[in-house]
Amino acid sequence: MSQEKLKDLSRLCIHTITTKPWDIRTAAQNFSEAGIAGITVWRDVLDGKNIQHTGSMLRDLDLRIVSLCRGGFFPHTDHGERIRAIDDNKKAIDEAAALGAPLIVLVCGASPDQSLQESRDQIAEGIAAIIPYASSANIKLAIEPLHPMYADTRSAINTMAQANDMAEQLNSETVGVAIDVYHLWWDPALKTEIQRCGNNKHIFAFHICDWKTPTTDLLLDRGLMGDGCINIRQIRRWVEEAGFDGLNEVEIFSKKFWEEDQAAFLSKITKAYLDHS
Amino acid sequence: MSQEKLKDLSRLCIHTITTKPWDIRTAAQNFSEAGIAGITVWRDVLDGKNIQHTGSMLRDLDLRIVSLCRGGFFPHTDHGERIRAIDDNKKAIDEAAALGAPLIVLVCGASPDQSLQESRDQIAEGIAAIIPYASSANIKLAIEPLHPMYADTRSAINTMAQANDMAEQLNSETVGVAIDVYHLWWDPALKTEIQRCGNNKHIFAFHICDWKTPTTDLLLDRGLMGDGCINIRQIRRWVEEAGFDGLNEVEIFSKKFWEEDQAAFLSKITKAYLDHS
Repeated sequence: MSQEKLKDLSRLCIHTITTKPWDIRTAAQNFSEAGIAGITVWRDVLDGKNIQHTGSMLRDLDLRIVSLCRGGFFPHTDHGERIRAIDDNKKAIDEAAALGAPLIVLVCGASPDQSLQESRDQIAEGIAAIIPYASSANIKLAIEPLHPMYADTRSAINTMAQANDMAEQLNSETVGVAIDVYHLWWDPALKTEIQRCGNNKHIFAFHICDWKTPTTDLLLDRGLMGDGCINIRQIRRWVEEAGFDGLNEVEIFSKKFWEEDQAAFLSKITKAYLDHS
Repeated sequence: MSQEKLKDLSRLCIHTITTKPWDIRTAAQNFSEAGIAGITVWRDVLDGKNIQHTGSMLRDLDLRIVSLCRGGFFPHTDHGERIRAIDDNKKAIDEAAALGAPLIVLVCGASPDQSLQESRDQIAEGIAAIIPYASSANIKLAIEPLHPMYADTRSAINTMAQANDMAEQLNSETVGVAIDVYHLWWDPALKTEIQRCGNNKHIFAFHICDWKTPTTDLLLDRGLMGDGCINIRQIRRWVEEAGFDGLNEVEIFSKKFWEEDQAAFLSKITKAYLDHS
């Protein structure tokens, strides 16, 4: 393959969920000691914490705070629930601002009790409703298309084409797209839609992991880069050719890896990152 | 909803895999006694059987033989394996002809050891290679797009758009598409692509079941119609408006249902079919 390998960890970011057994301080210290450049913070690790102090702690460890995960989950059959979702997204924006995270990743949501079109309309309405608040806090929002196997409850946005359509429709500098190889690798339109996303300056984040054969759980059996069949280096090249120069974020949900010693797992991550991304 | 409910079982077909614990004679007798119109035969139930006699047995029970499941699995990194796949598909054509099934459903295959594009090219080559043999036996071939969660090993054809593209490219009266709601319900282009498929007279089969929330197994946790979030009646209307007037085939893989008494399960199927399809 002609794609260039990564030479060091200067563009590596890890999601706190990837090393879920660690609290944020332990994760951050280990990431920093390993020479990892960035961290994406999941909201659960901020529970009961002073968020500004946590942000300072991360910066003191020379970690770049890439994003806060996650906002979204806008669709509900009940109007009151939709209002509460918008309020929770504003709370996430407050948290991102306090933390010093420039971006929130949106897992847009879906309700199995209504049509996909209704969920999609409610997602557009929900994002539109929080754009002014995000914009005034200088926080960007990334629509993350999720794999079609999550279309019942997690996201009715399931392809790059849909995410691009929605970002273009919302037409705001605040809104872009998060590209995750796990959700999108199968799509024959992926390369074209990445180019389109780049042309609009809409690529806000790039997430990596791998699709294992067999995959034994719909949610918690993601693979380490190289464990599966995704050509991560190819997709990374498309993303970079489309103008993205941000960090490569390792986001792995895995019962198997969470049961391992997390320091040993972190060593596997950095090796897999250099060998297979 | 304005869609018309089904009034009787005159367009209901059941796949032998749906009542997997039954041998073909038991399945056929029960289907026939319940007034079900058709049967789709999976090749495993023909093992060790005289296939012509089995076809006669089904016709004597007034069951319409809708299709033989399944051919396909064309992609392999090894050339010899690809040749063997083509030979096995010719064997399936012989079996369909002996049984009296007018159609073979193709689960096209994929290999995690090569790119999706290579798998897609090998699928097109494989189907092209068997068209003359199928055509001379008067057997049709239906490309079944599979859910993207099966893109690693089961099928690199994952949307109606891809199946339509391939059927149009192959440009033969022998080749069309099998539409399965389980694989395709999430696709925002579904209605448009069903219309396109109908315009080309390419809708060869229509499979139904439901997507459960939560789905606990990637393969063996399909739901009965009404158990999940798919608007089956809506999709059936699109398929009928596109000109399809064949049977509605219930194809359910489910550890849960296979552990139940199959006669009781069959009653649930006919009720769910009338209430939710």
